Amino acid sequence: MKKNIEPCYYGDYLQLDKILGAQKLQSEKYSDAAHEEMLFIIVHQVYELWFKQILHELNATIDTFNQEVVKDQQLTQVVYRLQRVITIQRLMNDQIAVMETMTPQQFLSFRDYLVPASGFQSIQFKRLEISLGLKREFRVDFDKQSFYSRLTDDDRALLEGLEKKPSLFDLVDKWLSRMPLLKTDDFDFWEYYKKATAEMLTDDHDTISTNDTLSTADKRQELKDWQSTKENFDALFDHEKFEKLRKEDKFRLSHEALLSALFIKQYSEEPVFNLPFQLITALTEIDEQLTIWRYRHAMMVQRMLGTKIGTGGSSGHHYLKRTTESNRIFLDFFNMATFLLPKSALPELPNAIKRKLGFYLNSIS
Amino acid sequence: MKKNIEPCYYGDYLQLDKILGAQKLQSEKYSDAAHEEMLFIIVHQVYELWFKQILHELNATIDTFNQEVVKDQQLTQVVYRLQRVITIQRLMNDQIAVMETMTPQQFLSFRDYLVPASGFQSIQFKRLEISLGLKREFRVDFDKQSFYSRLTDDDRALLEGLEKKPSLFDLVDKWLSRMPLLKTDDFDFWEYYKKATAEMLTDDHDTISTNDTLSTADKRQELKDWQSTKENFDALFDHEKFEKLRKEDKFRLSHEALLSALFIKQYSEEPVFNLPFQLITALTEIDEQLTIWRYRHAMMVQRMLGTKIGTGGSSGHHYLKRTTESNRIFLDFFNMATFLLPKSALPELPNAIKRKLGFYLNSIS
Amino acid sequence: MKKNIEPCYYGDYLQLDKILGAQKLQSEKYSDAAHEEMLFIIVHQVYELWFKQILHELNATIDTFNQEVVKDQQLTQVVYRLQRVITIQRLMNDQIAVMETMTPQQFLSFRDYLVPASGFQSIQFKRLEISLGLKREFRVDFDKQSFYSRLTDDDRALLEGLEKKPSLFDLVDKWLSRMPLLKTDDFDFWEYYKKATAEMLTDDHDTISTNDTLSTADKRQELKDWQSTKENFDALFDHEKFEKLRKEDKFRLSHEALLSALFIKQYSEEPVFNLPFQLITALTEIDEQLTIWRYRHAMMVQRMLGTKIGTGGSSGHHYLKRTTESNRIFLDFFNMATFLLPKSALPELPNAIKRKLGFYLNSIS
Amino acid sequence: MKKNIEPCYYGDYLQLDKILGAQKLQSEKYSDAAHEEMLFIIVHQVYELWFKQILHELNATIDTFNQEVVKDQQLTQVVYRLQRVITIQRLMNDQIAVMETMTPQQFLSFRDYLVPASGFQSIQFKRLEISLGLKREFRVDFDKQSFYSRLTDDDRALLEGLEKKPSLFDLVDKWLSRMPLLKTDDFDFWEYYKKATAEMLTDDHDTISTNDTLSTADKRQELKDWQSTKENFDALFDHEKFEKLRKEDKFRLSHEALLSALFIKQYSEEPVFNLPFQLITALTEIDEQLTIWRYRHAMMVQRMLGTKIGTGGSSGHHYLKRTTESNRIFLDFFNMATFLLPKSALPELPNAIKRKLGFYLNSIS
Repeated sequence: MKKNIEPCYYGDYLQLDKILGAQKLQSEKYSDAAHEEMLFIIVHQVYELWFKQILHELNATIDTFNQEVVKDQQLTQVVYRLQRVITIQRLMNDQIAVMETMTPQQFLSFRDYLVPASGFQSIQFKRLEISLGLKREFRVDFDKQSFYSRLTDDDRALLEGLEKKPSLFDLVDKWLSRMPLLKTDDFDFWEYYKKATAEMLTDDHDTISTNDTLSTADKRQELKDWQSTKENFDALFDHEKFEKLRKEDKFRLSHEALLSALFIKQYSEEPVFNLPFQLITALTEIDEQLTIWRYRHAMMVQRMLGTKIGTGGSSGHHYLKRTTESNRIFLDFFNMATFLLPKSALPELPNAIKRKLGFYLNSIS
Repeated sequence: MKKNIEPCYYGDYLQLDKILGAQKLQSEKYSDAAHEEMLFIIVHQVYELWFKQILHELNATIDTFNQEVVKDQQLTQVVYRLQRVITIQRLMNDQIAVMETMTPQQFLSFRDYLVPASGFQSIQFKRLEISLGLKREFRVDFDKQSFYSRLTDDDRALLEGLEKKPSLFDLVDKWLSRMPLLKTDDFDFWEYYKKATAEMLTDDHDTISTNDTLSTADKRQELKDWQSTKENFDALFDHEKFEKLRKEDKFRLSHEALLSALFIKQYSEEPVFNLPFQLITALTEIDEQLTIWRYRHAMMVQRMLGTKIGTGGSSGHHYLKRTTESNRIFLDFFNMATFLLPKSALPELPNAIKRKLGFYLNSIS
Repeated sequence: MKKNIEPCYYGDYLQLDKILGAQKLQSEKYSDAAHEEMLFIIVHQVYELWFKQILHELNATIDTFNQEVVKDQQLTQVVYRLQRVITIQRLMNDQIAVMETMTPQQFLSFRDYLVPASGFQSIQFKRLEISLGLKREFRVDFDKQSFYSRLTDDDRALLEGLEKKPSLFDLVDKWLSRMPLLKTDDFDFWEYYKKATAEMLTDDHDTISTNDTLSTADKRQELKDWQSTKENFDALFDHEKFEKLRKEDKFRLSHEALLSALFIKQYSEEPVFNLPFQLITALTEIDEQLTIWRYRHAMMVQRMLGTKIGTGGSSGHHYLKRTTESNRIFLDFFNMATFLLPKSALPELPNAIKRKLGFYLNSIS
Repeated sequence: MKKNIEPCYYGDYLQLDKILGAQKLQSEKYSDAAHEEMLFIIVHQVYELWFKQILHELNATIDTFNQEVVKDQQLTQVVYRLQRVITIQRLMNDQIAVMETMTPQQFLSFRDYLVPASGFQSIQFKRLEISLGLKREFRVDFDKQSFYSRLTDDDRALLEGLEKKPSLFDLVDKWLSRMPLLKTDDFDFWEYYKKATAEMLTDDHDTISTNDTLSTADKRQELKDWQSTKENFDALFDHEKFEKLRKEDKFRLSHEALLSALFIKQYSEEPVFNLPFQLITALTEIDEQLTIWRYRHAMMVQRMLGTKIGTGGSSGHHYLKRTTESNRIFLDFFNMATFLLPKSALPELPNAIKRKLGFYLNSIS
């Protein structure tokens, strides 16, 4: 053993007295112990431990992006940490199967003793959402409400403080915006891109128009969708139009950030874009996993309670349904596929630029 | 080797010449091979193989229930087969991660060559939905349309034929309806149940009324929900009311079937109810897994195409969103938790009845 | 809210102050905080929470079997509880992926501060093994040693006390042994079975003998294996032979229990055998999942440390390798496939027996 | 639709007539159809489809490394492809749960008709192993034998041809060996490293020596292990010693490749090492997943057959057990943790070197 290092014991190190001594059944207070209440408690405690770990990673990531310059070595770190978050999220999604080993009837045997506790009171989950960038104005109504009424004053103050700090969304937006690449090059990528996408849109219009399998009504709808897609494209090249659509919440990223992200996605195999591309992909995946979690959670609650009210005194299943539709954060990364061109339609980058996107070592060889 | 058994070889047995010779890239016809098209083809072929297996199990199950008497031994078999379906569905849901290793840009390199192919043309998937019991009138609009326009005449005829046959839903409903238990007993379970649920509903009403964390608007909504739950309860004891709600699609199961299912769920640990309970649970789970599949599929499509149109010439993501909300089949089993009583609120069954629900062996000992 | 029920709050109920306040990094004591130590702690705490839940289910199951009569309704419960254990085990196996997001180098940044803590000191895991039925004499050497030297006196006493109580293995063995079915029937199942298996063994012998793809050495080995299989078969019908093989640890179940289990597996679709069959299957699966856990754990340790010593001051990877091979408990259920006959080779049960294995309800109709 | 693109239909594109028409039950030839034989066929066909996809990725990766220069952009591609392989492998491992829904008895109802077919005859699996780099001399005995006897002449010729071509292992070894970084720098990393590791080894020796929880025998074993670890360390700095150990199969990578890999692992966050690190990690993971697959497969076979012989006329479970221990390919990457130093023990890289490992863009700013 290294000098000066005190011996460390498994149970002490993990503070198992606290961890394993924190399960007190409510049912025991009022009647016979409900066997499944232990599962209910432990499943939720495990979720909270994972939330703590996710916040540990998110906070470190926010600290990194909250600097003037993000070093390349730190970007590696950030990507690994976000991929760890995803691995944990996948596990959390699978964990729903454990909760579902409890039958609705078993749940009923202790439900009444939990009133008015509710998962909406998980401060860590709210911190997670806010840290990622879920703005209060984007929350579904029910969820907004819960901020004010269901929390203690301290908890509310903590969350409101957090809402004022820059979120990961904000910081990534800024970081993307200041990517210098697009502004300094005289190679006019965007001119080329404009032409290529115009062509693609015309093709899509043709495909819809000549699609005989669509009813007249459906065709009309599809053409309307196409029109809206076209407007989004036009906004890419017109700052004012973009800002207008952004106000309508059709975009959330700033104009510069969106263009940077688009360029990165188009040329993701260039060395300098590799980690940024992995970053964007990871944030998209985190959002997707969070959405799947809400959705599966909603199904589980319905299965457990039907249309009965939950312990929080409201039928959570309505809310959960709605939250799965809206509480998305990095929606722009999700929708970015709209604007992508296939490799074959992209211009070959001039050597001067390719060099700039490469490693030092190769540039001098 | 047993006499008269011809030797069997691995590759021949699995017909690997067919299986491994069925991947022809469209991209090769028109330009360079798109590396990821192989993945796209194989992922879909694997899905179709699993669909075939699921249909194999569903059809056998339908055959079993399509008899006048379902033997106890067959019920064991049915439950195992449905649990196998669930195991496959879980795998199919995880398989989406494989498809998501393809980036949107990689997909674009062959998307144009696939027009107008579309997953909506998977006959096996439609057969699966119809066999389970998805009625045309319950399908979301877009999906209804696709029946008429996107299929070949033969395929449409096949599906329309299938729609006329009894589905698993229909057969399970009938099987539940003819369970004799409730009608012959003079022990009045339902009278007791009526009283107990009335109490539970009053408690819930109190919980909502005294919940200070709800806004006035939310409280009004919750009380409205409560009212609707109460009406559903009332309908349990009133055939006419039930039929009225059933016409409004608030129930799909017949009155008798619903009551049988409810009784089974309340006393699932009684030997004779054990397999029926597992059956109901399995059907609920199949529905849930199918819904998760549609939902994850919808997210994947959005990630791959944004708001671009799909190869079928329509922006599938709209449809997929809607289908996740509605194309449920065994919704009543899902909502059944509404009507459940906790064990402690249930009457102890009289010995005469307990005996009837038990094994022969124990009844004589 | 129900009268007399005090309000319950999410964070208090889950004792989140304890749970989320139990992560103290050792690295912070001696140098800079190692970012990944948080993951290391939380991953282990989650495992311990799941162990607590598994023990909760196992202990309840042991209590059930520790009665003179196990009611049918309780058997339902037992099966559900063991299936829950399996669901948790699957999740625990997948959780290894979370630990593997930590690179070996990251682990090294705090490894030295953990000496001599070791996973071998997890009392809950040892309790789990002992409760299932892992006997000290079956433990691999290294593991035996750890009982005496690595634990505190209290912990050792606790485990030694537990070793003296009947394990789940012991109780299930007893419960299987007293199944009355085989002794009272005059239908001679075992006579029939003897003939059928003799035939099957002869066929297998032929298959090996005529297998030209085997080398002489391999054929010799296969025939030796066949011989040993044959001896096991012979022991089924000869109590003395059986006891002899049992002393050599070729069987662990008692003779009666093994025969009961075999009968159950052969006729698992008969109502009265349905739950016993699910019980046997669940115990096999629990053992398999535990073995997979040890194996994946061993791979992870090797990946993290190579051949370096672990924090416990010994190269755990050797031990873990060996433990995956031996620390199995319900090995007999695993090997039982050896003795199974295909359905077609089984005698049709006489109606009198079939009735005995059925429900009361059907027996009178 | 784009001009000149013929319409493409779902079922035709996927060649579903072939895929869904390739399931012919052997049991139907000789007796009644065995319901579970369909599952058995489809599960294996799905595996073969995934093998085809994995080979598609591996072959493309081999082609990339089989060039004189691997471009940075191609390295991105390679890493993505290998990560896709891992995603597929995880799914294949979970797929074992599907096979395990078949009971041993169900399998017996068609086992006899499959003789002498065997999974050992899967040519694609053998191609996969050989392409990765499994040398014949490293195969476990049984597996070696199967090359000669169980295959058709054509298949054997195909595999023997493949064995003569460079495997992914060979090519990655070469690519690592020619990394110029270590040879050109005058900064003496290895001198520093030597000193730091000597210290680490001394510490480990102390930890073992002062470990009172070890028995005398165990301590002796641990010290022997330590000695062998020390010899491996010494070999790192002595080409002759290294080659000697390599001949004893203690190392498989060439000396240069091992040192490169070690350097990459130590400084993985430097931009130029990012993708190489991901490559090494991916290859390690592929090996691990393959090993888990073999292990779980072995357990499944034991559960299905006990000690009975398999359809190939030999008790596969022996073989499978042994193969899980030995058929590893990238074992050096696995064991590399032995040689790693914690970040804190590593020298800060001089700026001149850091620059060389960075992006062009940052080097000029």
